[in-house]
Amino acid sequence: MSTFEKMWNLGKRIAHFEAILRLIEWDQETYMPKGAAASRADQIELLASTIHKEKTDPKFVEGIEKLDLNKLEAWQKAAVREWKEDIRKAKALPNDFVKAFAKLTSESMIVWQEARKEANFKKFAPMLKKVVALSREKAEFLGYEDSPYDALMDLYEPGMKVKEIDPLFKDLGSALSKLLEKIPPADNRCLNQKVAVDKQIAFGNKLLKAIGYEMDHGRLDISTHPFSTAMHPTDSRITTRITEHSYFDSISAVMHEAGHGLYEMQLNPDYFGTPIGEACSLGIHESQSRTWETFIGQSRPFWQHFFPLLHKSYKLEKTDFDTFYAAINCVKPTFIRVEADEVTYCLHVILRYQIEKDLIEGKMEVSDIPERWNSFMEKLLGIIPPTDKEGCLQDIHWSMGAIGYFPTYALGTVYAAQFFEAFAKDFPDWEKRVSHGELLFIRDWQKEKIHRFGRTFSSADLVKKVTGQKLSTTPYLNYLERKYATSLV
Amino acid sequence: MSTFEKMWNLGKRIAHFEAILRLIEWDQETYMPKGAAASRADQIELLASTIHKEKTDPKFVEGIEKLDLNKLEAWQKAAVREWKEDIRKAKALPNDFVKAFAKLTSESMIVWQEARKEANFKKFAPMLKKVVALSREKAEFLGYEDSPYDALMDLYEPGMKVKEIDPLFKDLGSALSKLLEKIPPADNRCLNQKVAVDKQIAFGNKLLKAIGYEMDHGRLDISTHPFSTAMHPTDSRITTRITEHSYFDSISAVMHEAGHGLYEMQLNPDYFGTPIGEACSLGIHESQSRTWETFIGQSRPFWQHFFPLLHKSYKLEKTDFDTFYAAINCVKPTFIRVEADEVTYCLHVILRYQIEKDLIEGKMEVSDIPERWNSFMEKLLGIIPPTDKEGCLQDIHWSMGAIGYFPTYALGTVYAAQFFEAFAKDFPDWEKRVSHGELLFIRDWQKEKIHRFGRTFSSADLVKKVTGQKLSTTPYLNYLERKYATSLV
Repeated sequence: MSTFEKMWNLGKRIAHFEAILRLIEWDQETYMPKGAAASRADQIELLASTIHKEKTDPKFVEGIEKLDLNKLEAWQKAAVREWKEDIRKAKALPNDFVKAFAKLTSESMIVWQEARKEANFKKFAPMLKKVVALSREKAEFLGYEDSPYDALMDLYEPGMKVKEIDPLFKDLGSALSKLLEKIPPADNRCLNQKVAVDKQIAFGNKLLKAIGYEMDHGRLDISTHPFSTAMHPTDSRITTRITEHSYFDSISAVMHEAGHGLYEMQLNPDYFGTPIGEACSLGIHESQSRTWETFIGQSRPFWQHFFPLLHKSYKLEKTDFDTFYAAINCVKPTFIRVEADEVTYCLHVILRYQIEKDLIEGKMEVSDIPERWNSFMEKLLGIIPPTDKEGCLQDIHWSMGAIGYFPTYALGTVYAAQFFEAFAKDFPDWEKRVSHGELLFIRDWQKEKIHRFGRTFSSADLVKKVTGQKLSTTPYLNYLERKYATSLV
Repeated sequence: MSTFEKMWNLGKRIAHFEAILRLIEWDQETYMPKGAAASRADQIELLASTIHKEKTDPKFVEGIEKLDLNKLEAWQKAAVREWKEDIRKAKALPNDFVKAFAKLTSESMIVWQEARKEANFKKFAPMLKKVVALSREKAEFLGYEDSPYDALMDLYEPGMKVKEIDPLFKDLGSALSKLLEKIPPADNRCLNQKVAVDKQIAFGNKLLKAIGYEMDHGRLDISTHPFSTAMHPTDSRITTRITEHSYFDSISAVMHEAGHGLYEMQLNPDYFGTPIGEACSLGIHESQSRTWETFIGQSRPFWQHFFPLLHKSYKLEKTDFDTFYAAINCVKPTFIRVEADEVTYCLHVILRYQIEKDLIEGKMEVSDIPERWNSFMEKLLGIIPPTDKEGCLQDIHWSMGAIGYFPTYALGTVYAAQFFEAFAKDFPDWEKRVSHGELLFIRDWQKEKIHRFGRTFSSADLVKKVTGQKLSTTPYLNYLERKYATSLV
């Protein structure tokens, strides 16, 4: 057995332990009896520490170091490059720090939940201060050139830097704000019709089948918050949230999570246990979910095919195609990020990015968050949240120590638009095909262009390779302009 | 931290890994996408080898050896005694043997499935020969005094010996055969009525709630074969099999598995991670399931309360109470063990015991199984299976290397009768209370007398402690005589 193969076997052990961890977390959110939370927490802690130990095991670390790159194939070289990066990150954080961070954030999530319920930011602030302090320490351990925020963002979107995002988000923010003014008000009240849970799940499964999400390698369940998770390309699961009186919520969730699910399903199983069998970055992952949720799932041709089926199955009242299409594409400033439309969504993300970057760079205090949040909201969206519950307490991310994560949501949308432009060039008749219910060619294009490469390329290189362009907001803004400021007017 | 506490922490690690293994096996039988089987097999192998490594880790083994019993409390002494026994068994089998056995049985299960489908014993025979040979080797590794079969049975029913079971089963077999002749033929065709899956599940959940199976610490799902599994006393799950056209199958399964589930739910969580937090033996476990399935779940008072609810919910046709009660207690020789009634069930088990014991003791050849099986069936039950599919190929146990397991099924029933006699002495009015739908006192009695002790006592000592008697078939035979040869005539 070659050294590479030996390392691969160790990599497979790690990958299987990670898969098992994800499965028991999936169970926790779907079927676990609610009284089992304490024992589940112990199981999760045991697996997490086992994984960290295997990842930093000298046998693995030194074996990877010793590999002679000249003797390896191209994909193996890429795998080793990524393994080294993973090891660098895992080893940068001392064990005691990892434990302290995990302990703090598990406590902080509980305090955040209470604070949010009470709309009481002051209750959460002391915890958040500690999370920010430890996150700054984390950045120091990880190392960076320009901004400590780069070190954190790198955990979610490898290689992305403040100096690249700053101008990108600045342009994007002002363009979106301007665009927003041009869009006429819309009405989405027709979506508030009661549809039974089993009907909604059945329609979700119908959509999944149509887009080529293989039910032999995945499944759809219900959870409080929709999510996707994968144990292996042959076991990529998604969940949805059912709101009985607002039937489009679950359709959006299914399409979004299916985009994530398809990515994991179409990774190359032959590379399982190496980074080449893993998704490129969270931003690229998000681009796949946004593609299905919005570029396809809120498009006219898609609903030209599916609306009659939906109308019949859900027995919709007072809803013709145009009313429906306008409703699902209703643009309107709102307080909650996860409910935001295609135009305002990125503004919510930019707001969070500005705040968390300034916190990590030491340019603002935790106590200033509510005021900063509200003035930003007013500036970007023209509205001010009634309480911090609908404002700066709405997201779980900061409480769980995931600072640096938010930008991937906006990047995902920007990447998605770039990819979609390339896709539309490859298939100029895509709208016609989709309007006939033909969808598998989209999935196949994604596999060919994006999924099968795993982490072979950085997200920047992947975008360049697929689109011929570097990261740019132009395709996204063009898409929005065309869809909202031209067609809908 | 005392050495005992240190060992307990290692024991908790092992117990959590075992819990995680059981959870992913539960998922495999309930919700796993069918295309994920190969990756799941890898995950299971990884966890199984991790558990074996932790159980035989010198730190654990030597730590347990070094413990000063004089400094321990009574329950700790019992824990150490059982830990030592577990370690003895784990260390007796060389690693290479464990791997070879696992490999052989995973292949053998596949061959058995095909052979059963084709009713072709000759196809399975070569594999079974190997399983028998390795099982005999296993017995040599484990060690024994009289019969190599003792060493195998000890894995499932610690301390049980051929010299004790041989006379017990001999008497039991002839008594049951004689009793069978006295029982008039019955008719159970009224149970063949179509009831929708969701109705059957709803009624199952109603029964679970009534007997005190806590839904916050358990759940009911559907699988091909009903089973129960527990990750912790707070997470004890069961499944049922739904036969749409034979509605009592699922009721039986739910009551049976609930008996197992309650045992795990009522183990003392304070001892989790030690043998005192584990069930006593498979035979004692089976006694708890048989109690709920038959002694309660096929009793007149139980259905006096539940029959009106069942009748209404299932919209039963042409079924009055007496027809129903006679049908669920219909005694009739049949080919399939898992479908057998209270009287013939143990005869099926005795047949298997005789054959596997003779195989392990070298007194018969694998090739002679079909003839031996059929002549036994004719002698015990007066019927001969049309093919080996309904005969010696029906059970999975031999293919998976679980030789020595079968006796626990009959022992479970015998223990159950002994326990139930003791219970009835404690509650002379149990029939009246049950007929009013009062059931929690049964569960509480089981907890007090059996569940909370875990492995503190051997099964023999536990039976003695609870009933004041040693293992005996008298209570069982008295119960059957009273129920079938007197009341029903």
